[in-house]
Amino acid sequence: MFESAELGHVIDRDTYKKAVPALREALLEVQYDLLEKREFPVVILVSGVDGSGKGETINLLYSWMDPRHISTLAFSAPSDEERTRPRMWRYWRALPPKGKVGIFAGSWYSQPITDRIAGEMRRSELDYLLDDINRFEAMLVNEGALVLKFWFHLSKDGQKQRLKALEKDPRTAWRVTPESYERLKTYDRLQEVAGHVLRVTNTAKAPWIIVEGTDDAYRSLTVGRVVLDAIRHRLQHGRQEVPVAPPMIHAIDQRTVLGELDLGRKLAKKDYERELAKYQARLSELARDARFVGKRSLILVFEGSDAAGKGGSIRRIAAALDARQYQIIPIAAPTDEEKAQPYLWRFWRHVPQRGRVTIFDRSWYGRVLVERVEGFCTEADWLRAYSEINDFEHQLVAEGAVVVKFWLQISADEQLRRFKEREETGFKRYKITEEDWRNRKRWDDYVAAACDMIDRTSTGLAPWTLVEANDKNYARVKVLKTICESLERALKGENGKTIEK
Amino acid sequence: MFESAELGHVIDRDTYKKAVPALREALLEVQYDLLEKREFPVVILVSGVDGSGKGETINLLYSWMDPRHISTLAFSAPSDEERTRPRMWRYWRALPPKGKVGIFAGSWYSQPITDRIAGEMRRSELDYLLDDINRFEAMLVNEGALVLKFWFHLSKDGQKQRLKALEKDPRTAWRVTPESYERLKTYDRLQEVAGHVLRVTNTAKAPWIIVEGTDDAYRSLTVGRVVLDAIRHRLQHGRQEVPVAPPMIHAIDQRTVLGELDLGRKLAKKDYERELAKYQARLSELARDARFVGKRSLILVFEGSDAAGKGGSIRRIAAALDARQYQIIPIAAPTDEEKAQPYLWRFWRHVPQRGRVTIFDRSWYGRVLVERVEGFCTEADWLRAYSEINDFEHQLVAEGAVVVKFWLQISADEQLRRFKEREETGFKRYKITEEDWRNRKRWDDYVAAACDMIDRTSTGLAPWTLVEANDKNYARVKVLKTICESLERALKGENGKTIEK
Repeated sequence: MFESAELGHVIDRDTYKKAVPALREALLEVQYDLLEKREFPVVILVSGVDGSGKGETINLLYSWMDPRHISTLAFSAPSDEERTRPRMWRYWRALPPKGKVGIFAGSWYSQPITDRIAGEMRRSELDYLLDDINRFEAMLVNEGALVLKFWFHLSKDGQKQRLKALEKDPRTAWRVTPESYERLKTYDRLQEVAGHVLRVTNTAKAPWIIVEGTDDAYRSLTVGRVVLDAIRHRLQHGRQEVPVAPPMIHAIDQRTVLGELDLGRKLAKKDYERELAKYQARLSELARDARFVGKRSLILVFEGSDAAGKGGSIRRIAAALDARQYQIIPIAAPTDEEKAQPYLWRFWRHVPQRGRVTIFDRSWYGRVLVERVEGFCTEADWLRAYSEINDFEHQLVAEGAVVVKFWLQISADEQLRRFKEREETGFKRYKITEEDWRNRKRWDDYVAAACDMIDRTSTGLAPWTLVEANDKNYARVKVLKTICESLERALKGENGKTIEK
Repeated sequence: MFESAELGHVIDRDTYKKAVPALREALLEVQYDLLEKREFPVVILVSGVDGSGKGETINLLYSWMDPRHISTLAFSAPSDEERTRPRMWRYWRALPPKGKVGIFAGSWYSQPITDRIAGEMRRSELDYLLDDINRFEAMLVNEGALVLKFWFHLSKDGQKQRLKALEKDPRTAWRVTPESYERLKTYDRLQEVAGHVLRVTNTAKAPWIIVEGTDDAYRSLTVGRVVLDAIRHRLQHGRQEVPVAPPMIHAIDQRTVLGELDLGRKLAKKDYERELAKYQARLSELARDARFVGKRSLILVFEGSDAAGKGGSIRRIAAALDARQYQIIPIAAPTDEEKAQPYLWRFWRHVPQRGRVTIFDRSWYGRVLVERVEGFCTEADWLRAYSEINDFEHQLVAEGAVVVKFWLQISADEQLRRFKEREETGFKRYKITEEDWRNRKRWDDYVAAACDMIDRTSTGLAPWTLVEANDKNYARVKVLKTICESLERALKGENGKTIEK
């Protein structure tokens, strides 16, 4: 893995000095092209052996390029806001927007490598994380990001010499800490672990660039040229075509999960009121349960036909909760800051911390519903979204979130009745728009998209609950009951005790 | 203060039921007008005595209006990301954008009132905070926000009865905690403190609305109508005209602080290199000083004529720092999320936590420079900006930030020379744009605006440093030296020891 980076690459001072002006000029040119076009972000990971010039290289990139459009983020101990959310949340919030360069000094690789070296992580756990990382990076690349992963390598002797040289110069001496020498002792172990990590994550979409760190001039010119060529190539050739999967297969007898729903289900008013009160009380209790507060979070996803009663269900849930504990996130058109990021970014930013509830009124499933049906994204984009969404929800659940997803289904006739009723009733009028009538015309397309979505994203960790919603009473109680039962199962799972009913 | 809220206001159930449908409809209408026009945000503070129906009222607003465009934020103990920044940072990050309603369950009033009751804050400290709050709210209102501050009052008996009633109903019993009864004991003290707080902060721009909380129907209808009338009035009548201050007075002999600068100051190359190395080493040391890390932060502001060398100075500072410690924030056109917030919001979001350095390449002074000169904001807007900016910087300094502000001045001739040079030199070309040539034509206006700015915002806590920048060597060393000296003074001030030189 590191053989080519132990050859003792050296660039003499004259060659370096001659090469730099043209390189700077070219780097600035592509940086400004990048900024003007705002088509993709550049994500640069700077990692490697201690003393191999990571900091110097970052500073150099700052001095060669326009530092105003580069951001560097270092990741040491996570803050409490980060600790109470899924592991990748802190990296999502640090992603550079399209047109900008984001340098990660330390990254999603740092903790796994450190933990593995310290013996705090088993190989199987590490491989599991690396698998996650590969999928995360593939998503970044598929979303358009240019991902450059640098690993600066030093031979064991080289590292010793670099540390000594840094120590001698008063301007760099501070970069050498007792930990630097500590890490020298674990050099072999680092090589072993890093070798494994790099091998497993050396993917076609985001390959590693291993650079010998011994000679400043060699290292600097190499990094500068790789960055230059990669951005330039991407600007010239655009985003790589992503192969499209075979078409979805639908059952030849036309039977679908939504078609099979018994939309005639009803709940009488008296039963409704009793059941509603019962489940609201139970939800209210569960949300204040010590096993929930500070340990778990609740993420509710509402999708469904227009006028299926999402809002009404959400209000019944909200009424059982303390306003200080939940947020409702309506998903409408993305802001320009959101448009400059990977698709899932605008949902990651609302991931609740432990003890909190977030209710999404429409969600990340927009990609495989409205965006698919209306052609707002390419086929390749929505096809890969299924597994990206599964990964996302998996990360939420792994951190302790209880993810409950509802599809509210009404019949076409019931929708028509509600549309008309809404147009007539004053204070419900706001809910009916031109767009609703337009969407209604594509009823079958939406149903097909919903069925595909349910098949592909109803996982054991985050299953879909299909709600027969022609009768609002029945639907609201089913939603509340499902939430209570999901929470109970989750809290029970955590400490093996059955909750009091 | 609370007399009108102890009259035992009651609305009978029938009147309430009759009034609600029309109120709901009207609230939805104005909420949708608000959302469509996106002219201003609505900030609703819900505060008051325990058990006075704060939570219920918030839930009611959610059920009467469209909950997707309301957000509620509760403020209990600050997170560590909040604790390491100025007190108001957490409120700034929670402000609703234009078109939306943000409910603050607990607000900037909560902590001062609680601390004062607990005897942890002196009256003078409280009054000092209240003064800050008044200026903050005035700023919100001047920026266009509709601020509605509700205080729910209960008589002492009323509070006891409410708590008992809440306890009886299993659905609300959880709202009553041991602390609720604890607070009943401090009822008189709360009335005294709250009375004082409300009186001092009952400003013309953001008056308190005191509501008797005993009767649900009365309280609900009152809040609903106040919210309705306030939003409706504002939508119809627009933003209130802000009186404009008398024109700036300029010295009759035309002498200005910038005109008096000796732009002939120079530093020979050899001296430059020695001094640069010296101050970079010192800065590097200071940034790693235990008295800085985790305790103070450094905020650098760069303003000046185009081509005055801001970028070059910033790079020399960056070279002395660890990339993991600083961020450069270039100020360009605001994003749409930024445009939907008060002017200073986009700077607040970049306020560094303790131990970090943020370098602003152009800054909040844009309001009184380019926005003033080019007419991007009204005269009233830039006139009030001076004191808002002073408040902002005061809050930064109060939290431990060292704020160092540079105005880099070159002569008109030198600017012309640099513009031409940049057009000729390849890799500097990016720095010169059409806009630079346009701005150059308004040289005198920019100088006048800069002189006003310096006069009005060079405070003891955050003084301006004027830099004679015709000679880049001289300017860069002056900048670095000033930063080092400012840091040294600040660190010395903290523990009374002189720093080693």
